[in-house]
Amino acid sequence: MKSKSSHFPPVIILCEPQMGENIGASARAMANFGLEELRLVTPRDGWPNEKAFSNAGHAKHILDSVKVFQTTEDAVKDLHYVYATTARSRNLAKPVLGPVQCAKQCLAAEHFHHKSGILFGRERWGLNNDEIGQSDAIVTLPVVEQFASLNIAQAVMVLAYEWRKQSLEEDDWVPFQAPEKSAPATKSEINGFFEHLEGALDDIEFYKPLEKKPVMVQNIRALFHRAQLTQQDVRTLRGIVRAFIRGKRE
Amino acid sequence: MKSKSSHFPPVIILCEPQMGENIGASARAMANFGLEELRLVTPRDGWPNEKAFSNAGHAKHILDSVKVFQTTEDAVKDLHYVYATTARSRNLAKPVLGPVQCAKQCLAAEHFHHKSGILFGRERWGLNNDEIGQSDAIVTLPVVEQFASLNIAQAVMVLAYEWRKQSLEEDDWVPFQAPEKSAPATKSEINGFFEHLEGALDDIEFYKPLEKKPVMVQNIRALFHRAQLTQQDVRTLRGIVRAFIRGKRE
Repeated sequence: MKSKSSHFPPVIILCEPQMGENIGASARAMANFGLEELRLVTPRDGWPNEKAFSNAGHAKHILDSVKVFQTTEDAVKDLHYVYATTARSRNLAKPVLGPVQCAKQCLAAEHFHHKSGILFGRERWGLNNDEIGQSDAIVTLPVVEQFASLNIAQAVMVLAYEWRKQSLEEDDWVPFQAPEKSAPATKSEINGFFEHLEGALDDIEFYKPLEKKPVMVQNIRALFHRAQLTQQDVRTLRGIVRAFIRGKRE
Repeated sequence: MKSKSSHFPPVIILCEPQMGENIGASARAMANFGLEELRLVTPRDGWPNEKAFSNAGHAKHILDSVKVFQTTEDAVKDLHYVYATTARSRNLAKPVLGPVQCAKQCLAAEHFHHKSGILFGRERWGLNNDEIGQSDAIVTLPVVEQFASLNIAQAVMVLAYEWRKQSLEEDDWVPFQAPEKSAPATKSEINGFFEHLEGALDDIEFYKPLEKKPVMVQNIRALFHRAQLTQQDVRTLRGIVRAFIRGKRE
């Protein structure tokens, strides 16, 4: 797993956020996925905001370096590319991107040391047309039409996640491997277990009617083959068979 | 953008959620992306919960049909595939998936009218090893390692988003090959077999020394979980256990 070194992950800009909780949760989402810079445009309850800090989890470093601006125009001044998130279609001739495309464009910009920012609107009514007008493109999420209204921090989460995922290059990225199972059993170890089990089942006349034995054996073997048995598994299974053969200890 | 008609979008299962706000925000995230069924395992503050409703936005229909269970085992009984979300590596030999792979597997299961569910853990410490042990795979998000702790509703959001996105990407959609296996066993069928086997092993005093029983049980269960047992497999295995208990026919 390798991550691109990122000098300019996109800036997150919350326009007139009302609830401190959402500011904090946005910061937490940013930290989860490696975003760093949060800007606020005239937050309703001023700044700093206690509720933001109590909802930020371990992301207090992001809140500590928040920058506050009086207007959205000020907040995007130093940026090269601005994306406006909105759930509703607007009558503006702007490209409309999904989160994946937005993330890819931000990464492409980084490549040239250009800075991108993503605007998020007010809890009640989103971004205004001026704000969208200042943006290079609209970003929208694949929501169900009747339930298009997103919590701000949730929208930040999805875009941050998608940026991170794209920056890791792989859709099938996983951050940790399952611990190594013990060494896989060899075929002869597995067959040794099969013979052990099948012999024991013969002894207790398990296969009834006897002409079905071949298909029963085949199914049982298939089941254990699917489990990709380790050497430890084979020892355990043979222990179980031995225990059943012996029955209750004296 | 068209969506496949989906009969069985994955069920979301919150294990012992503490905060009503998170339950509500999870429901809202589900509605945003077309998930429908929410289950709760012993929510701390009982059910229904006022804060859940006030945080659900337009997703009250999801809260209205919430089902509450006493144990996680009960909550997954009717499911064919269960995914456990966790940020930390666990010492369990389970496949580890990212959100895309999880979404694709859920969609593949739907294709065969099989039900999937995704488990989310407690705010403070996530899922326990038993819960993960009952799952077919671990799902994890591409978080930054130092900031791996996710808000539950945020984690629900990302998995719901990815499920929705994958379900809309029909062009990329490669249906899995029809399995040659018979129908997969449900979790309650698998657990029925485990109880049967473990009871029989208790009777013959297999677990020696007794303090190693929990880890032995866990390993045996993991082995059989890896086999993705079918209903036929469970019948066969229970037949074997019965035969061993009975011993040689007269």
